[in-house]
Amino acid sequence: MEKPTLYTVLSPGLLELYTLKNTVVVVIDVFRATSTIATALKNGANCVYPVAGIQECIDKGKSLGAITAGERNGKVIEGLLHGNSPAEYGSDFINGKTLVLTTTNGTRLLHMALQQGASQVITGSFVNISSVCNFILASGKNVILACSAWKDRFNLEDSLFAGAVVDRVQDEFLINCDSSLMVREMYQLHRTDMKQFIRQTTHWHRLKAFGLEKDLEFCVTLDAADILPLYCPETQALYPHRVEKRTVLNK
Amino acid sequence: MEKPTLYTVLSPGLLELYTLKNTVVVVIDVFRATSTIATALKNGANCVYPVAGIQECIDKGKSLGAITAGERNGKVIEGLLHGNSPAEYGSDFINGKTLVLTTTNGTRLLHMALQQGASQVITGSFVNISSVCNFILASGKNVILACSAWKDRFNLEDSLFAGAVVDRVQDEFLINCDSSLMVREMYQLHRTDMKQFIRQTTHWHRLKAFGLEKDLEFCVTLDAADILPLYCPETQALYPHRVEKRTVLNK
Repeated sequence: MEKPTLYTVLSPGLLELYTLKNTVVVVIDVFRATSTIATALKNGANCVYPVAGIQECIDKGKSLGAITAGERNGKVIEGLLHGNSPAEYGSDFINGKTLVLTTTNGTRLLHMALQQGASQVITGSFVNISSVCNFILASGKNVILACSAWKDRFNLEDSLFAGAVVDRVQDEFLINCDSSLMVREMYQLHRTDMKQFIRQTTHWHRLKAFGLEKDLEFCVTLDAADILPLYCPETQALYPHRVEKRTVLNK
Repeated sequence: MEKPTLYTVLSPGLLELYTLKNTVVVVIDVFRATSTIATALKNGANCVYPVAGIQECIDKGKSLGAITAGERNGKVIEGLLHGNSPAEYGSDFINGKTLVLTTTNGTRLLHMALQQGASQVITGSFVNISSVCNFILASGKNVILACSAWKDRFNLEDSLFAGAVVDRVQDEFLINCDSSLMVREMYQLHRTDMKQFIRQTTHWHRLKAFGLEKDLEFCVTLDAADILPLYCPETQALYPHRVEKRTVLNK
């Protein structure tokens, strides 16, 4: 049987070049949306609603009696209760609750993937890499690793995570994709100095001004919140999904 | 005085995210358009007209009494006389002549850059890297290294060349750009095994079927046709431009 394909898409601005039919799309927004989503679900949140707009976040929070959260430029948005830091979502706080989270790059990409006909959408970051790899290996479907980037501009942290996934699963996929080849090499180059290397990224420089260094280090910690957020189009929320373990090389 | 900025754009699909005013755009299409353009000019061609369409190529060739050239899928296009291989443009053949060349990715990107208001457009490849670096260092303008990619999909060879340029000129520019950081690292990683590494790219696999290995190796040879093709919007052609030498580290 032919292996399924795997492509890495370096920016939402390039997603339309790819066919998403019969494809699992992994939405990647390492700093910090998809790291925060995994953390909230790992710590017992019932589900996470990713929404694009602030008013939508407020309205949905009210109607569901849910926690509302979101930041713009490193600060909690007026009218919302919480921020976009994974550190805010310990189990003491989030267990048994519902979270409505507004983010810009990641949420937009998730909706783009659905509109283009993705058969399943999951979210990934270093903190839940094993669950992501197990899920895509078990699915038998083609895979797109979709980087959220920053206002469509390529970023390193999302690409490095894509590279970490390629590094683990490459033997099981047909990969004819220069992006995947590159991100894998970048990950291999920096796997041992990741927490140092991310200090060179533009995103680090943007966020460190807000005192978020610890957040960013957490976001690149392997399996710190190892759970699989799977998007349900009917309810428009992400739920923790039980993944069958498969042989994955924990390189 | 503040340094000019430098950005690397990994695909034409992302070019619109950048301001091109007061900017030199380096159009990069290593396999093979910008390698062939440099070679033809280095070997004495008067100028090169890059055109998008086949009929436009035929018509312009007729009206100018010029050599027409272009390939699709590795074969000379019906109605044109020559192909897109730099090996075809030795000085015995091209000296004193005019070339009208139709290519897909590179020509389209060049026109996009002009439409977006680039103040100057030059073309670059490994074969003319020193002239490219000297020109952008002397210009004092902001710089965009624009990769032609393949039908907007990221490719490695164009990015590696962008990385080679970043590696040489980085001290003279303000670089706040993850793409530039990445391509520089990829170049540093593969500078010594370039001719082997390009065998892993998707473009190599596409073109090797046409027996073009020697072409592709030539295209990644540093300064094999070291001249600076500068686009003239009035005549719509690329001419050899004399570049003042500046201190460039020939790493």
